[in-house]
Amino acid sequence: MTKRVYLFGDKSAEGKADMKNLLGGKGANLAEMSLLDIPVPPGFTITTDVCTEYYTVGKEKLQELLRAEVENGLAHIAKITGTKFGDKENPCLMSVRSGARASMPGMMETVLNVGLNDETREALIKKTGNARFVYDSQRRLIQMYSDVVMEKAAGIEPKEGQGVRVQLEHLLHNLKESKGYKSDTDLTETDLKELIVAYKNKVKEVLGVAFPEDPMEQLWGAAFAVFQSWNGKRAIAYRKIEGIPHEWGTAVTVQTMVFGNMGDTSATGVAFTRNPATGENYFYGEWLVNAQGEDVVAGIRTPNPINEVGKSEHTKHLASLETAMPEAYQQLNAIQQRLEGHYHDMLDIEFTIQEKKLYMLQCRVGKRNGTAAVKMALDMLAAGMIDEKTAVLRVQPSQLEELLFPLLDPKAETKASVLCKGLPAGPGGAFGKIVLTAADAVEAVKKDPKAKVILVREETNPEDIEGMRAAQAILTARGGMTSHAALVARGWGKCCIVGAADIKIDWSNRTIKMKDVTLNDGDVISLNGTKGTVYQGELPTVSAAENENLVKFMTIVDKFKKMKVRTNADTPEDAAKARTFGAEGIGLFRTEHMFYGKNSEEPLFYLRKMIISSTEAERRAALNELFPYVKKDIKGTLAAMDGYPVTFRTLDPPLHEFVPEREDERIKLSKALNITMDQFLDRANKLHEVNPMMGHRGVRLGITYPEITEMQIRAIFESAAELLQEGKKVFPEIMIPVTCIETELQHQYKIFEKVYPEVLAKYNMKEIPHMIGTMIEIPRAALAAEKIAKYATFFSFGTNDLTQMTFGFSRDDIGGFLGDYLDQKILPVDPFQQIDQDTVGQLMKIACEGGRKARPDIKLGICGEHGGEPNSVEFCHKLGLSYVSCSPFRVPIARLAAAQAAIKHG
Amino acid sequence: MTKRVYLFGDKSAEGKADMKNLLGGKGANLAEMSLLDIPVPPGFTITTDVCTEYYTVGKEKLQELLRAEVENGLAHIAKITGTKFGDKENPCLMSVRSGARASMPGMMETVLNVGLNDETREALIKKTGNARFVYDSQRRLIQMYSDVVMEKAAGIEPKEGQGVRVQLEHLLHNLKESKGYKSDTDLTETDLKELIVAYKNKVKEVLGVAFPEDPMEQLWGAAFAVFQSWNGKRAIAYRKIEGIPHEWGTAVTVQTMVFGNMGDTSATGVAFTRNPATGENYFYGEWLVNAQGEDVVAGIRTPNPINEVGKSEHTKHLASLETAMPEAYQQLNAIQQRLEGHYHDMLDIEFTIQEKKLYMLQCRVGKRNGTAAVKMALDMLAAGMIDEKTAVLRVQPSQLEELLFPLLDPKAETKASVLCKGLPAGPGGAFGKIVLTAADAVEAVKKDPKAKVILVREETNPEDIEGMRAAQAILTARGGMTSHAALVARGWGKCCIVGAADIKIDWSNRTIKMKDVTLNDGDVISLNGTKGTVYQGELPTVSAAENENLVKFMTIVDKFKKMKVRTNADTPEDAAKARTFGAEGIGLFRTEHMFYGKNSEEPLFYLRKMIISSTEAERRAALNELFPYVKKDIKGTLAAMDGYPVTFRTLDPPLHEFVPEREDERIKLSKALNITMDQFLDRANKLHEVNPMMGHRGVRLGITYPEITEMQIRAIFESAAELLQEGKKVFPEIMIPVTCIETELQHQYKIFEKVYPEVLAKYNMKEIPHMIGTMIEIPRAALAAEKIAKYATFFSFGTNDLTQMTFGFSRDDIGGFLGDYLDQKILPVDPFQQIDQDTVGQLMKIACEGGRKARPDIKLGICGEHGGEPNSVEFCHKLGLSYVSCSPFRVPIARLAAAQAAIKHG
Repeated sequence: MTKRVYLFGDKSAEGKADMKNLLGGKGANLAEMSLLDIPVPPGFTITTDVCTEYYTVGKEKLQELLRAEVENGLAHIAKITGTKFGDKENPCLMSVRSGARASMPGMMETVLNVGLNDETREALIKKTGNARFVYDSQRRLIQMYSDVVMEKAAGIEPKEGQGVRVQLEHLLHNLKESKGYKSDTDLTETDLKELIVAYKNKVKEVLGVAFPEDPMEQLWGAAFAVFQSWNGKRAIAYRKIEGIPHEWGTAVTVQTMVFGNMGDTSATGVAFTRNPATGENYFYGEWLVNAQGEDVVAGIRTPNPINEVGKSEHTKHLASLETAMPEAYQQLNAIQQRLEGHYHDMLDIEFTIQEKKLYMLQCRVGKRNGTAAVKMALDMLAAGMIDEKTAVLRVQPSQLEELLFPLLDPKAETKASVLCKGLPAGPGGAFGKIVLTAADAVEAVKKDPKAKVILVREETNPEDIEGMRAAQAILTARGGMTSHAALVARGWGKCCIVGAADIKIDWSNRTIKMKDVTLNDGDVISLNGTKGTVYQGELPTVSAAENENLVKFMTIVDKFKKMKVRTNADTPEDAAKARTFGAEGIGLFRTEHMFYGKNSEEPLFYLRKMIISSTEAERRAALNELFPYVKKDIKGTLAAMDGYPVTFRTLDPPLHEFVPEREDERIKLSKALNITMDQFLDRANKLHEVNPMMGHRGVRLGITYPEITEMQIRAIFESAAELLQEGKKVFPEIMIPVTCIETELQHQYKIFEKVYPEVLAKYNMKEIPHMIGTMIEIPRAALAAEKIAKYATFFSFGTNDLTQMTFGFSRDDIGGFLGDYLDQKILPVDPFQQIDQDTVGQLMKIACEGGRKARPDIKLGICGEHGGEPNSVEFCHKLGLSYVSCSPFRVPIARLAAAQAAIKHG
Repeated sequence: MTKRVYLFGDKSAEGKADMKNLLGGKGANLAEMSLLDIPVPPGFTITTDVCTEYYTVGKEKLQELLRAEVENGLAHIAKITGTKFGDKENPCLMSVRSGARASMPGMMETVLNVGLNDETREALIKKTGNARFVYDSQRRLIQMYSDVVMEKAAGIEPKEGQGVRVQLEHLLHNLKESKGYKSDTDLTETDLKELIVAYKNKVKEVLGVAFPEDPMEQLWGAAFAVFQSWNGKRAIAYRKIEGIPHEWGTAVTVQTMVFGNMGDTSATGVAFTRNPATGENYFYGEWLVNAQGEDVVAGIRTPNPINEVGKSEHTKHLASLETAMPEAYQQLNAIQQRLEGHYHDMLDIEFTIQEKKLYMLQCRVGKRNGTAAVKMALDMLAAGMIDEKTAVLRVQPSQLEELLFPLLDPKAETKASVLCKGLPAGPGGAFGKIVLTAADAVEAVKKDPKAKVILVREETNPEDIEGMRAAQAILTARGGMTSHAALVARGWGKCCIVGAADIKIDWSNRTIKMKDVTLNDGDVISLNGTKGTVYQGELPTVSAAENENLVKFMTIVDKFKKMKVRTNADTPEDAAKARTFGAEGIGLFRTEHMFYGKNSEEPLFYLRKMIISSTEAERRAALNELFPYVKKDIKGTLAAMDGYPVTFRTLDPPLHEFVPEREDERIKLSKALNITMDQFLDRANKLHEVNPMMGHRGVRLGITYPEITEMQIRAIFESAAELLQEGKKVFPEIMIPVTCIETELQHQYKIFEKVYPEVLAKYNMKEIPHMIGTMIEIPRAALAAEKIAKYATFFSFGTNDLTQMTFGFSRDDIGGFLGDYLDQKILPVDPFQQIDQDTVGQLMKIACEGGRKARPDIKLGICGEHGGEPNSVEFCHKLGLSYVSCSPFRVPIARLAAAQAAIKHG
């Protein structure tokens, strides 16, 4: 029989840490802590498999399947605690929480205080002697349960402001106002008692059903609401961003409640075994006295630092747990050290102190930003806690991105006036226009993908997730370093400042007051997320200086990677820059890109002249004029790469795009060609194509106009010859694009066979090192790779075009349907972001096999955008490619991904 | 050691008929005849492998390799004939001819009378006592050899009119003029003797080298010239059209000369064992007294009919061989009967009678047109000469095309005035504008692929081949049924009239006189190639009535084929027509095609309205208006196919193409949608795509606008339901286009799951027979076929798009480079004409395997244009497809190709 429920508590457990897939992270780690004899309130976990059952068999059937095991779980708790769930004499309460394989902070539902009703309440009051606390707990249960279980999980979608949660909040608000209370803590026992009655009435009124008094009904409702929340909008959106499979499901952990809100000897907190923002090795966390866990996470109150070492300028006036409850703190500190030693990793822990007694509620591997990840990996390696392989695996390749993020220019920063300060929750610098809602942020970026906006909120909540993603940075008025905004931003390596208490948002005027300055929605501000400072206007940013830890880390990384990492660069400047990122060559030099963005307009003019030519003579004349410019850039690039290979792709211009739009340029061109404007237009029109992506491009041009290929090959070898004679090292590779038939390559090879000896003779040389190969970017080329390899000593996969043709998706036109495809899960991920391994990958595999069959030593690489995407890099490693090539900025990411692939797959 | 030379003659031979690949058709069949004790002048054949050697090792080396075997061959001849090549006492002369595996009539070179020089000439005069004949032979040798060997094979490209051939012709012409001769036969012995001297001097003058007197030098020169002519322009052009591989090479046959021009007891002729134009079973041929073979073939003199039965209205006044030389004729007739019985096929034979003695110079399987091929296959089957399988294999699928060719409307023909008459060399009717050169014909069709031109020539020669292909029909003033024009036209099943002696071409005015009517270049004429009559102006044509023989033949064909043959049709009318061609269903009904070419403009208007809609509500309104029209055509088509399957492809419109160009239509549409013209233009612009072929089309539309799919599925099932209730049979198949991911199909399947029960309920029915499947036209779909097959009960290969994406060749833009690709042999054949089996075929294979793995009973078919192309049909058979679908006109061709594939591959 399938086991659906796993018990834990009192030094024993049916699960353990490595059963995350089945028990979720929370359940597995609670079991592990219990086994380690760490104080954990007893409970049980319903497995992730049951979540799948929930969606197939339905609630009623599932309740039948689960009943015996759940009752056994409650008996287990009763045995340990001596209390009994739902008992009228000595009841206990339950927390019902989600827990997936991968942490999805705040994305699913939780219900606390389950089991409270009018009867158990009275028993608890009797037992605790703290009536106010018990009434408050019941009030919280009704508020939470009616929202999460009775409305959301039931699929009720109320109109804006009509939901049960808002309406109960109104009751609370009105009561406070009528009594002149400022805070919830001002509410008296009597107030709360009245409120409970009012809440129950309101729930019945709004939802049409009475609030359930039966503890078991509450428990089932809460557990199923957690399963239901797996497919809530927030959770789905988060999984899409994080790439978590929808089929994993969540576990549900039912655990005896302990209370941090039973008075001044009670407390609750969240902590990390090391600083998750910097990686520094000290116990780091936040706590609140007389509070429940969600008070810390939700960022409603700004929490206190957990110890003295963790105090900052912003928190130095607040009492630490270390001083306020030294005994509990020492116990906690010992536990956190033990846990880190046990897990060999930085952990994120949650604890509650109930009347001086410490309970651990959660421990998990803590999220950290890239800077911290690198530092922790190095520190733990130095301390002998982990080995080099583990260190390399500890940093996600994409996390490196933030280490390369720009910073605010320090010079400009010293001169700028600080608008306000907050907690430095996400490092780096950013500027942008203020937006006040997540929806505005999403909208702005939809309109203009390059739009830079800063999301400014009082606090963020999980509903804001997409807007947070869209924004350059996040700034909140409330919340601490473990608040929602901080956690999420850190996960993404995004610039973020939280708890900037001086910010006041005036919603009626859509303005923001920061101390005495008033800013409007749309005004530009700049953030230093490393220091927590906010400035008015746009401050210049500078690229991150080479980070000492990063250099050290990348040195270890490079010990393991087997693939080379090259870069795509089109100018000597780009080439030089890419070297600083560790590029071991250029995998793609797009000849036609060199003509744009130059000071001189001449090369572009000659290129256009060549394209508008209608005879070979005209074309050769233009090519001769173009030659010195092409050669200059080629030579500069070869020199910059100093003997590293440089792959020059022969001209692949989308001809029609090069026809100038401006009248004066058209006139100049037609004069230069000595043709009338009518003739000019006629020639330009002939270049127009219905489907240019599958038109007269790449090698097809080299075949109809062999003189173009000839000019380029000559420029490459002459550049190489001259550099060699200057005593430099060079390794040019000539790459033919858009090849689909072996005879195309054979044709171009003949041009090489003519030009190469001519250049050797001109410079009186015997040899110039070189390779000649082709892109594999057309499906046919992959399928015919064995034949093509006869004329190619290397293949470079052009996975952009290969994806385009394999899917029949024009990148330019995909906007018409890609959104719907991703939303409706027709595609799990954009195939232009990640190689579609089943199909595009299958073609790559066929091509690798074919290529190696014809030429066992063939060099294989990739130069599509996928070459810098970690999953795709891993796939390339598995294919046995020699190198990946990507944009300069992504080179470190590709290096790390390549090393991790080598460690994982050998 | 490699054997390079094979001997034959005197009842023995080293080769035989089935060694065509090595000896060429001519060499193999001469050997076979020799073995059969048929009188053949002795000789030897140099193999086709030596042709390849010729192109790799070069002439000098080759001569070394060949010398011993060639000398042995000459000794063999000497032994049989008692004469000796080059001997000063008793010499013999040699003919040197080409012979490839497949017949390439007139495309390569021949040299006759090899071995004649001033010394052997005198010996021959002495031996034959016929000085005039010997002088004439030497004149012919010089004329032929200097042109073929000394100029062409040497690669000399003289200016127009400056070639040695033309210059020698001038000498001849001038001599005849100065003496007042009308014909070559007026030349005296003395004239010819002088001419020989003048010829030799002219050759030296024009080519700078003396005419070679050494017989062996002549022999080597002639043999190598034949090898060289394998790669002449004509030969290459012919091979391209006929699909003959360039690497095959030609053999060279060296054979003792016999002479049909030794006086009135000598003759030469060409004949067929049956009539090659009609298939009638009688000995059919032409002959000329006192002539050499090329005189018949070249069409310089109109030849006599070989026998009485073969006489026509045009030839009844000419003497037949049967009456003129009864003895030789009887011997020839006996040989031809024996040969046909031996080969079990209609043969094309060449013979020469030298002073009453008959020699066979060639026999080969005779070319025939489609009509004749069908009749002969049926007749030989009836006579027990061949079995059914052989009969089916005797007709090339493409030959059936001509049986379906249009004829001139007989009613119009009776009223039209006959301009002139000629020999009916190629059947069918045609009309077009007169063009006077092959180049003009090519040019006209290049400018407008639909241009209809008639090539009118005095006679055609192999240089005209491409123009003959481009023309609708060919009309020549000279030549017989075995002339070049007749042979070539018959091979292609093209309308052709030859020997229309009343035609006089006036080159200076570019006019044509036909009896008393003068026509200009560009005037329209009509031809009846079945009768040989030419009419002024354009006569209407009617489609060929169903041919009784064809019906009989196709009945046999259908016994063997295993694949079904369906048709692509988009209207009830097309569907009904296709049935008459034997279509067993519709493999592709393009929903969007039904909107064009209708009397009513309404459906197109509503379609456009739907496309310009911007909300689901607008779109649904337009779809509702469209619904009755769509349903009407679907219902009509299902009814016409009477229970045969009909595959409806859901809408795949290239959206932007449906936006009307005309202002009034735009106004009407925007009014109907109640939008401004600016809004209209804005919506229309949004539909524009950069690469529409890879854009928002096919299933992608069905996903973003599911209501479109819904409307179509409803129309299909409602039509089917109504027909079933009327007692009719129906089998609709719903086919989703452009699928590339299984989830797309799953999405569309859900729409079916909604609509189907609704229709069943509406008509109170339990079931409507149907299938739901997808096109496989995107490479990804082929690669992911196993997953896709979960939601598809059939696959239909859309090889047009599949070829497009696999090659990355946009059909619309391929014009920019396809010509160069074919000319430069980068592509052997247009992949849109014939499936590229290595790559597109590989994807099809992957898809078949994947589909069958997921669903062993999956139905597989093809609906791309390739479905009617014989090679591709054969490939589909090998893949195990259930059916091919093609345009109605190609259905019989596909049926035959399918049957042949089944016979060849089981």
